Amino acid sequence: MPMNRQWVLDHHPDGPATPATWRLEDAPMPEPGPGQILVRTRWLSLDPYMRGRIAPGANYAAGVAPGEVMQGGGVAEVVASNHPGWAVGEMVETMAMGWREHAVLDPDRPGTARANRIPPGIPPQASLGWAGMPGLTAFVGLTEIGRPLPGETVVISAASGAVGQVAIQIARLMGARVVAIAGSDDKLAHCRDLGAAEVINHRTADIGAALDAACPGGVDVFFDNTGGPIHDAVMARLATHARVIICGRIAVVDQPADRDIGLRASSRMIVTRARVQGLVVFDWWHLRDAALSRLAQWHRDGHITFREDVLEGFERVPEAFCRMMAGANFGKQLVRL
Amino acid sequence: MPMNRQWVLDHHPDGPATPATWRLEDAPMPEPGPGQILVRTRWLSLDPYMRGRIAPGANYAAGVAPGEVMQGGGVAEVVASNHPGWAVGEMVETMAMGWREHAVLDPDRPGTARANRIPPGIPPQASLGWAGMPGLTAFVGLTEIGRPLPGETVVISAASGAVGQVAIQIARLMGARVVAIAGSDDKLAHCRDLGAAEVINHRTADIGAALDAACPGGVDVFFDNTGGPIHDAVMARLATHARVIICGRIAVVDQPADRDIGLRASSRMIVTRARVQGLVVFDWWHLRDAALSRLAQWHRDGHITFREDVLEGFERVPEAFCRMMAGANFGKQLVRL
Repeated sequence: MPMNRQWVLDHHPDGPATPATWRLEDAPMPEPGPGQILVRTRWLSLDPYMRGRIAPGANYAAGVAPGEVMQGGGVAEVVASNHPGWAVGEMVETMAMGWREHAVLDPDRPGTARANRIPPGIPPQASLGWAGMPGLTAFVGLTEIGRPLPGETVVISAASGAVGQVAIQIARLMGARVVAIAGSDDKLAHCRDLGAAEVINHRTADIGAALDAACPGGVDVFFDNTGGPIHDAVMARLATHARVIICGRIAVVDQPADRDIGLRASSRMIVTRARVQGLVVFDWWHLRDAALSRLAQWHRDGHITFREDVLEGFERVPEAFCRMMAGANFGKQLVRL
Repeated sequence: MPMNRQWVLDHHPDGPATPATWRLEDAPMPEPGPGQILVRTRWLSLDPYMRGRIAPGANYAAGVAPGEVMQGGGVAEVVASNHPGWAVGEMVETMAMGWREHAVLDPDRPGTARANRIPPGIPPQASLGWAGMPGLTAFVGLTEIGRPLPGETVVISAASGAVGQVAIQIARLMGARVVAIAGSDDKLAHCRDLGAAEVINHRTADIGAALDAACPGGVDVFFDNTGGPIHDAVMARLATHARVIICGRIAVVDQPADRDIGLRASSRMIVTRARVQGLVVFDWWHLRDAALSRLAQWHRDGHITFREDVLEGFERVPEAFCRMMAGANFGKQLVRL
């Protein structure tokens, strides 16, 4: 009887996740019912939002309970189809993939669980990066919330990550001047290649002094992918009418949940008239198709390039997650099966 | 030779202002030049933003240096006119009044320094309250930033103050459910009369528990007129997609300036997808005439009432400012000359 390997959550981590946060289990191979497809996983996407899914507390989405299959997006190949719209051999991208070697999908499920066709002309795994959820995140963060004007200064943290790389390039297309923050000189060299005018290594620089030097007129748009000390340093340097996209929290997500989201100094918020907004990309899913079409056009025009960091083998999925959380990856973290 | 009394700033206060923060001086009576008018002050407006004008640090507007006449809005009567559009005996409202018994004004100065006619049918000092800058502040805070939907919960701090009173009534007109926070039971009874569904005395209640009870579904819109502990308590209870208007900072404005406006927990900002925006009403001055026309219509229809707290005599202007800052006023703080 063929079996299906899957990673299930062993326990909610207290602090950073480790490979022992999950355990590998065998399950029976699933059977597709009417209207369903059976797929074989080819790529899994590791993203910071997944840390929230294994926290015990409330979040914006239902989490994973111990014993359940870990959630996550991926790319898969159709190996059996009971759906008239899907043929064996087609490639599918879905947020409902999960950490499992095979899955039964309902391709027509609405919203984020939908099964999406891979657009022609791009590698399949791109639909987990610039041509998928991270790309949409960067797109809506800048075009709907940050809205930089030509010549404005945009600071992007975790700038060599999946969202950050796309954000640099969109901000440049919008005519903005980009200051990229990342954790190694290699990453920063890549950010310069993508168009960043100034770069800051948050592990070695005095971040406040570096921001003062890089942003003499203050920060007009802050694309915050980390929270924590970088957040604090940039928030202290907002320009008048600044816009802040609170998108990621990788620097603080392993800490105990804090209910308080108060501002340390509301006075400065008034002086700057800043606007600070939390971004969850799933709120903007209605813009997905239009945004991804736009990104694809920019890619065809040579305006979007993207670096991936690929580990090989289903056994390494937890390891890949942990290195992504630690910032040891360089580029979008993927696992190829 | 006729003299003109004026209050000048004696020194930048270190902590709360006291009456000794200013000193009364005699100055020569000013002479209106071509196109100018000479006015006699009838009402002076005391507002929390004025605390920022006597701080030494940078603010959104130029401050008052020691030895200069204190800034502030007021209502005055034209006593001499070299301007064809203004006749002796007319009443004028302007943000450029200053703490002086007479002033020479350029009625056509653009922006906030403009001299405005008092609309017919209202008492002149209303143009310093619901029919003026504080009313416009409440209007743009709710209609441009907070945008409560019918049935949503709007929490308003300093709710019996000049901005708060109008905000309660506009939020009610928009169909929202209002939770008012103020510092005495008398003030809260007034807030109930204005339409607040729930009231919280921040000096006697456990504010967190009171907010939990008053806002079981969380806070959809927070009109923050104080900063400080009330800010923190409300921010911890934002509903999904909450909107926060950072309008006032009376609870913290006497403290040393803090450059940091970082969020204590950006995670919650993402979970709630809240939007937090600093409001300086002078940014929205282009909406003034339309907003005040709307407010006047609501007033004629009986939807806007407004309580004033009036001290008598030019000698008492600093005292009036200090009692307003301490929350000892009940309603919009004014001085009648």
